[in-house]
Amino acid sequence: MRVADLSTPALVADGGALARNLDTMAAALPGARLRPHVKAHKCTALAREQAARGHVTFTGATPRELVGLAHAGLGTDLLLANQCVDLQRLAALVATGARVTVAVDSPATIDAAARAGVGEVLVDVNVGMPRCGCAVEDAGTIADTARARGLAVRGVMGYEGHVVGLEGRDERVEKTATAMDRLAAAHALVGGDVVSAGGTGTYDINTLATEIQAGSYALMDTAYAKLDVPFDLTFGVVATVIHVAPKYAVADCGLKALAMDHGQPDMDDGDVWFCSDEHITFAPRAAVNVGDRVIVRPAHVDPTMAKHEALHIAAGPGLDAEIIDTWAIDLRGWDA
Amino acid sequence: MRVADLSTPALVADGGALARNLDTMAAALPGARLRPHVKAHKCTALAREQAARGHVTFTGATPRELVGLAHAGLGTDLLLANQCVDLQRLAALVATGARVTVAVDSPATIDAAARAGVGEVLVDVNVGMPRCGCAVEDAGTIADTARARGLAVRGVMGYEGHVVGLEGRDERVEKTATAMDRLAAAHALVGGDVVSAGGTGTYDINTLATEIQAGSYALMDTAYAKLDVPFDLTFGVVATVIHVAPKYAVADCGLKALAMDHGQPDMDDGDVWFCSDEHITFAPRAAVNVGDRVIVRPAHVDPTMAKHEALHIAAGPGLDAEIIDTWAIDLRGWDA
Repeated sequence: MRVADLSTPALVADGGALARNLDTMAAALPGARLRPHVKAHKCTALAREQAARGHVTFTGATPRELVGLAHAGLGTDLLLANQCVDLQRLAALVATGARVTVAVDSPATIDAAARAGVGEVLVDVNVGMPRCGCAVEDAGTIADTARARGLAVRGVMGYEGHVVGLEGRDERVEKTATAMDRLAAAHALVGGDVVSAGGTGTYDINTLATEIQAGSYALMDTAYAKLDVPFDLTFGVVATVIHVAPKYAVADCGLKALAMDHGQPDMDDGDVWFCSDEHITFAPRAAVNVGDRVIVRPAHVDPTMAKHEALHIAAGPGLDAEIIDTWAIDLRGWDA
Repeated sequence: MRVADLSTPALVADGGALARNLDTMAAALPGARLRPHVKAHKCTALAREQAARGHVTFTGATPRELVGLAHAGLGTDLLLANQCVDLQRLAALVATGARVTVAVDSPATIDAAARAGVGEVLVDVNVGMPRCGCAVEDAGTIADTARARGLAVRGVMGYEGHVVGLEGRDERVEKTATAMDRLAAAHALVGGDVVSAGGTGTYDINTLATEIQAGSYALMDTAYAKLDVPFDLTFGVVATVIHVAPKYAVADCGLKALAMDHGQPDMDDGDVWFCSDEHITFAPRAAVNVGDRVIVRPAHVDPTMAKHEALHIAAGPGLDAEIIDTWAIDLRGWDA
């Protein structure tokens, strides 16, 4: 079966480009220097490819993602890089038997981790983005509180999420330095040997971190493709043209199949006008007919993956490539 | 179990408000005057509530939605209000034994319907939104082509999607009239006794249509709630506060749980700053603590439903209401 033979809409990645992205990152950040973030792909088959290249420590944003990795035999060292006070879900994660480390940033999150039987934590520090993470000056107290509850404190985490997507490299370098000055100050108060941070946009800029939490580098998206990173856009949503008008055409891939939070998708052979639930209206650059296939490139990979049940792996780019594998996107949802 | 006891993020609707919305619409457009659009909720349990109020004809945007309705015993009269050239999916829909009508707007879509064994069609007409639908002047030819292929032409369809969401009623009235002038002209060329059109924003304005395809009216969303329609916002995503900072707080409900295409969600007790994959950062209007629950109101109901596996029905509004039922969102995805 070729890409053009798939029922649509369907997610497809060029397996060769994906392998090159994985190899490039494994060469730059070998082994545990990379802790791949599975929130970007939610796919144990892709995590296995990362593990095969030497990365056996993983990052997740939900207990469900990490429970799925543990059940797939990928539970060597799992980090929940997020705050969680759901005792049932934390306990279910612990019950997998995997090595589990959880981010904490408050007495309440420490209490939840301790009560759920979690053994190890990282102190999550706010390095400049208004989201989770304690203030730098509170990091030592948080670590002391965790240790008093019997938790081993492995170190600190601080995600420069306000920096990773900036297009200018100089700006990323400067703002990463500022963010990591904060994380270093917190680390001095907390101790431990782990400094976990970073993403695809700062994987080679963030030199403080002992481990980088990149995820998007594997499949990429049009937002990250604007940066000067050595990873190629590998994936898109294949759609079928269902209507052709004089100035535009319509394909059967809409905002239920595409993440819209980073803006409109792009198309290889057309200019996108707008997306509806199940449609994309676009101006084709060459004549198209009803029944033709087109490839739509989402702006944000993570939430696009979460909308689909499967990722098809093709032998190459384009519509004529053979489908060589189909991977379940099995870490979706929130219930384990 | 109360709303506040759910694991989060979780979709919840106030069952009383939902019943009132369903009753209000059934009184305004009884029986087949409404052909409920299931793309808005993707939930056979909710479709059963609509059928219990007398609406036994349904609209869908995908074959998968309609196959699911047919398997649930709701296949009295199903309209695929979308173009489809996937023979396998069309044939699977026909194979359910349900009465199936399909929208066509070109020789290619007519050919697909005929080859898949579809018996009845509506001619889809462009009434002003650049999406599917033939030009008014081509509608008669399309109907003739369909009849020549042995298809029964039941009438016309023309969705004024560029009008239904406009906030000013006068503007909706004026633009619906313009759109329906086009549909009436096409109807004169096509014949048949069905004129299918409309949505929640024009359900009482569009008087040309013999049947209205509204769907959002049942659950509603913050975009439709700005209009002067007699339907209340019933649903939201319950989330848990996981971090509290001096000027903001963070809850565990992000853009993987919320449709973002109509813009930011609202919150009952906070001002939303931004959403990340699994987080919402907001300024609470009263003090909150880690572990507290909050309710987030998505701007667009249809794609929000498509992100969740279940809709919990509560006995009333708010966090203390008892959960009285849980409905599977079972019409998601594209594979039947």
